[in-house]
Amino acid sequence: MGELILIGMGLWDELDISIRGLDELKTADAAFIELYTSLMGKLSINKLAKLAGKTISVVDRHALEEENGRIILEKAKKTKTVLLVPGDPLIATTHVALRIQAEKEGIKTRVIHGASIMSAVMGLSGLHNYKFGKSVTIPFPQKDFISKTPYEVIKENKKLGLHTFCFLDINAEEKRYMRINEALEILLKLEEKEKANIITNKTLIVGVARAGSRKPAVKAGFLEDLLNYDFGKPPHTLIIPSELHFMEAEALIELARGPTAIRRFVK
Amino acid sequence: MGELILIGMGLWDELDISIRGLDELKTADAAFIELYTSLMGKLSINKLAKLAGKTISVVDRHALEEENGRIILEKAKKTKTVLLVPGDPLIATTHVALRIQAEKEGIKTRVIHGASIMSAVMGLSGLHNYKFGKSVTIPFPQKDFISKTPYEVIKENKKLGLHTFCFLDINAEEKRYMRINEALEILLKLEEKEKANIITNKTLIVGVARAGSRKPAVKAGFLEDLLNYDFGKPPHTLIIPSELHFMEAEALIELARGPTAIRRFVK
Repeated sequence: MGELILIGMGLWDELDISIRGLDELKTADAAFIELYTSLMGKLSINKLAKLAGKTISVVDRHALEEENGRIILEKAKKTKTVLLVPGDPLIATTHVALRIQAEKEGIKTRVIHGASIMSAVMGLSGLHNYKFGKSVTIPFPQKDFISKTPYEVIKENKKLGLHTFCFLDINAEEKRYMRINEALEILLKLEEKEKANIITNKTLIVGVARAGSRKPAVKAGFLEDLLNYDFGKPPHTLIIPSELHFMEAEALIELARGPTAIRRFVK
Repeated sequence: MGELILIGMGLWDELDISIRGLDELKTADAAFIELYTSLMGKLSINKLAKLAGKTISVVDRHALEEENGRIILEKAKKTKTVLLVPGDPLIATTHVALRIQAEKEGIKTRVIHGASIMSAVMGLSGLHNYKFGKSVTIPFPQKDFISKTPYEVIKENKKLGLHTFCFLDINAEEKRYMRINEALEILLKLEEKEKANIITNKTLIVGVARAGSRKPAVKAGFLEDLLNYDFGKPPHTLIIPSELHFMEAEALIELARGPTAIRRFVK
């Protein structure tokens, strides 16, 4: 009897997998890895394979989505099969779809959790996690089309006094990873069109790059001051805070090197 | 020069720490652990200490909050000091406060992330993470007082078509961990008072117990059917979904053994 185990590898490199995850990998009969749903900054498949003493096969978007993970499911029917994924599994809908398909075919599934980018970035910012509203992805513009969803979500959250967590788009095939600066420019363009006075030069933002690494960049400030700030290598994420609790302002000043003027957002 | 490293231990037991986290623990000069901000179902401090070859000192709420972690900070001024925490660090505000205090005293700090209960439970439910609104904690009633905040948050989220993630209260000192059944009873009592028709016998709920363990309980259904359902040992968490995407309904049916009648929530 086979089984399928989804293992989250966490955020940065091959050392972010849990002891339990590595143990399951070591005892697997077949091991796959996907790296397109999220970017791990320094992951070496070779080093991970060496740690585990296993051969690890890369599966791409085509194999997982167009072919519905058939190559993985066929192995999992008969043998202990693991799929290694960036971050925490099942946050990407493609993992949920694979799990559903496996269960429908009578394959037992299990999940080994890993650190999640959303939780890590919320934590690094020092903002309170229960003050975040709906999250949103800022997608790359398609030719002349810019989705206004991020703008709408930020607007609705601000109305409710809630922070907005923005995932920035990635296109692993083309090795394109949206930077905080690009995301801010997109938001400014949306402001020009929508004119609801949501995104201005004085809007408070928090940028986080390379969460999970030894030296993540965590910087709070006004949009005009961070528009050209160099956050360094990807992955990047962005938070648009709303009103702040006193403790949140102190955290942004002390841990995210924000200007003391952000105390004016304390409500 | 000392430093303070906050290490997230993840969800279930001593094997949920990352390779990186264990490596930092192995090379620490002083190691502390706190276990009151969240419950890890099967953690053995002895086993973890053995894995790392270190003595680990437990710090309680009093040492961290009333004494502002002084015992930890004094060590961290001069030596490499780690504080092990359940889940992902900095989600508990007490960790953020400690980190701010350390930085103010000139102590360098770093964070090693761990799996977070919120991300894990969202993933296990199969619900889309960007469809969650503000999260909330359902606190134990204090004598006759029941906080109506959870009810208000669920109501606001539902209005916006968003799911609500409910943390259930824990009191580690008294070893009290709120169960899903208790949480549902509290919500029903709030409905009796507030009468906004938010929580009824036909309300869709998803209960998750022991996320991160080999056999988490993940069960979707109508409130009346789950009010007396035995989810087993803690920790428990609760999701009140709003409208469902087609894929979310399929996930709840296939992965959370929900009744097919929940397809009626698909919008």
